Amino acid sequence: MNDKSAMSGVSITRLVSSDSDFDEQLSNILAWDEAADHRVHEVVKDILSNVKNNGDNAVVEYTRQFDGVTASQMSELEILPERLSESLSKISVEQKRALEVAADRIRRYHEKQSQASWSYTETDGTVLGQQVVAMDRVGLYVPGGKAAYPSSVLMNAIPAKVAGVSELIMVVPTPNGEVNELVLAAAAISGVDRVFTIGGAQAVAALAYGTATVPAVDKIVGPGNIYVATAKREVFGTVGIDMIAGPSEILVICDGETDPDWIAMDLFSQAEHDENAQSILISHDKQYLDQVQNSIDKLLVTMERKDIISASIEGRAAFIEVQDLNEAVNVSNRIAPEHLELSVEDPDALLPAIRHAGAIFMGRYTAEALGDYCAGPNHVLPTSGTARFSSPLGVYDFQKRSSIIKFSADGASEMGKVASVLARGEGLTAHARSAEYRIKGSVGQ
Amino acid sequence: MNDKSAMSGVSITRLVSSDSDFDEQLSNILAWDEAADHRVHEVVKDILSNVKNNGDNAVVEYTRQFDGVTASQMSELEILPERLSESLSKISVEQKRALEVAADRIRRYHEKQSQASWSYTETDGTVLGQQVVAMDRVGLYVPGGKAAYPSSVLMNAIPAKVAGVSELIMVVPTPNGEVNELVLAAAAISGVDRVFTIGGAQAVAALAYGTATVPAVDKIVGPGNIYVATAKREVFGTVGIDMIAGPSEILVICDGETDPDWIAMDLFSQAEHDENAQSILISHDKQYLDQVQNSIDKLLVTMERKDIISASIEGRAAFIEVQDLNEAVNVSNRIAPEHLELSVEDPDALLPAIRHAGAIFMGRYTAEALGDYCAGPNHVLPTSGTARFSSPLGVYDFQKRSSIIKFSADGASEMGKVASVLARGEGLTAHARSAEYRIKGSVGQ
Repeated sequence: MNDKSAMSGVSITRLVSSDSDFDEQLSNILAWDEAADHRVHEVVKDILSNVKNNGDNAVVEYTRQFDGVTASQMSELEILPERLSESLSKISVEQKRALEVAADRIRRYHEKQSQASWSYTETDGTVLGQQVVAMDRVGLYVPGGKAAYPSSVLMNAIPAKVAGVSELIMVVPTPNGEVNELVLAAAAISGVDRVFTIGGAQAVAALAYGTATVPAVDKIVGPGNIYVATAKREVFGTVGIDMIAGPSEILVICDGETDPDWIAMDLFSQAEHDENAQSILISHDKQYLDQVQNSIDKLLVTMERKDIISASIEGRAAFIEVQDLNEAVNVSNRIAPEHLELSVEDPDALLPAIRHAGAIFMGRYTAEALGDYCAGPNHVLPTSGTARFSSPLGVYDFQKRSSIIKFSADGASEMGKVASVLARGEGLTAHARSAEYRIKGSVGQ
Repeated sequence: MNDKSAMSGVSITRLVSSDSDFDEQLSNILAWDEAADHRVHEVVKDILSNVKNNGDNAVVEYTRQFDGVTASQMSELEILPERLSESLSKISVEQKRALEVAADRIRRYHEKQSQASWSYTETDGTVLGQQVVAMDRVGLYVPGGKAAYPSSVLMNAIPAKVAGVSELIMVVPTPNGEVNELVLAAAAISGVDRVFTIGGAQAVAALAYGTATVPAVDKIVGPGNIYVATAKREVFGTVGIDMIAGPSEILVICDGETDPDWIAMDLFSQAEHDENAQSILISHDKQYLDQVQNSIDKLLVTMERKDIISASIEGRAAFIEVQDLNEAVNVSNRIAPEHLELSVEDPDALLPAIRHAGAIFMGRYTAEALGDYCAGPNHVLPTSGTARFSSPLGVYDFQKRSSIIKFSADGASEMGKVASVLARGEGLTAHARSAEYRIKGSVGQ
């Protein structure tokens, strides 16, 4: 049964796991194909190559053209530290406190992710290990205008600083010169080192290749529109990048005992991001699904972003009826959701069986929105089923490892024999002879 | 001074760090641009879409066509576990022992990389943490024919099994039906679960999308030719992939006291991989550089792969003369080499200053070749300067993390206030209201 429960209100796709074609129906609901836009790709390639060749001049020109600012040179497009600090007095006391509380909690959580170098010594004196080092310089892209999210600054900047990145460079476009004080305040609180008011593919290019004014970075993180995402894909290899995110998703597993208004609002909090966001509710209780449907119909009219919410719910949401909580977990593992709410009496009982999810919100009190802002864990999470193989953004994304190998004379002699056999088996005789030189009693010693 | 030291022998580019245009010359030496091949891209896209739509039939057809095998159905292209075990008796006792010693050392080293789940409880009862879970299923690509490297099977398979991956599926083409017993033996020793004798873009497609016979995996790792690399790039997002490797490189820093024959052979061990491989030697001792040049001229004629070695050395090698060891380290950090040999008296003194390198081989006895086979650390390393932001292949590449958030009623109430302020600051009122429902005394409670 795949019907849209229309009634008078919002139409929501309903699936029943015992239906013979459930698998296929679920695949259809989940299908998401980011259309590759050839024109965007061409525009981005031009911008990248122009900035690579002409540096600051190209960046200033694009910024005048796309963002309507009047700067004539790059130095006018930097926000100096004093101006950043000033933002802290331009926002409300309540906002400043909220940012600080969130930043503290995010910092404390991420400090647990720090990795330490390690090594061990074998009996013959050979030392093996791993040296963990922070990246030197990281670029943080922050969208400007309406989609400017101070929480996103905290979530990207704090893990980088906890990792020990020495220079964190933020870019944020200011369309028509309009700056967002909350974004600047978040940058000040998270310890961003430099801020340039540039955006789009030109900002990504400046960070990747460097200009006379903007230093080249080792990695670029942060969300952006299709031009930014395309530019990041293109410069990958020259610099590291974070994941390119798809539309945001929430999956709620509910035992039917949570206030249906709460669940409706939790689904809305995902749906209000954009029309392609996906909200899925799984329960064994058909009557409960109907109650949430009623709450949705009742609450939708009260929402500021009701047009986006209803487009998202009607286009991409699903209510899935299952046999029991175990089956709910199996369906969830199949989906590998970005956000998973376990709105059940005993979430700990389900946790060990959860294999794939970006973040797991346990119990009726743990609304996803709390995690988006101030719980502590990161809100940059793998979307579109990529939680099968990827992780939340973390300190580990700003550190990298070097293997350490230090052979003693004895160790090199013993292992030289092993390497020699294997290298000759592969026909790589320079490898073999290089190892053999280190064998005691060989011609080289 | 950028001259090719020709004399009678091999011509090697020489740079001197005190030259005014040293930076530019170094950039020229390092420049490496993988030419994007439009035709390859089109061929690969066709193969991917054909396998996605026609599954086993398409894979069998391509395998007949490209690998000259006679199979008529997919089941004939699976190597069963008994056949894998059989390979252990088909290789020499010495080879079997060498593989086992290497596998043991690789396993022992990688076990140190395992990450554990963690959590902590706050005073109000809120629990935050990170759950670490292995990927369910991983695909390992192994090239067939001449470039079939059993060491590569060990280096890719063992970290996956140490991570806890439950099903590890290897693909290896067998051109004209020829199997490599060492590769099969390495698969048996590392605990590979299933092996299919398929290769190319069709094998990548089978692993990414799954067919009736080949199960879909969550991540694909392992080296391959341009078709395999292009296919991996294309399926990225559907599955995870490892890094796409550029040509291999070695950078040797030498204090002038290591036997120049040893260093010449270490440089050869890199150069023999392929014509584009890069070997760089840095020393403060000009006379020593001349001695290594002499060793190269003397030894080259004795090498089995002398044509590849001389093409690589003449085309891409460089000898760099610096002021002292500190400057040598600075130049090395600028290059961020895949393999770094510190062939000096006191390598530990230099280690803390090394910021970017895939693997660091310390002291005169630690030939890179030892690390390639049996030291323990991984030989899959970041190339082309990407050590600035990436790490050796490791257990961490086969595990992923989920954030855990479990608010107590008190915690949700306090944090609901913070989230509400921040969400309203971003204009996301469904987020705000979802959080506000959890505030004590709110309408929802």
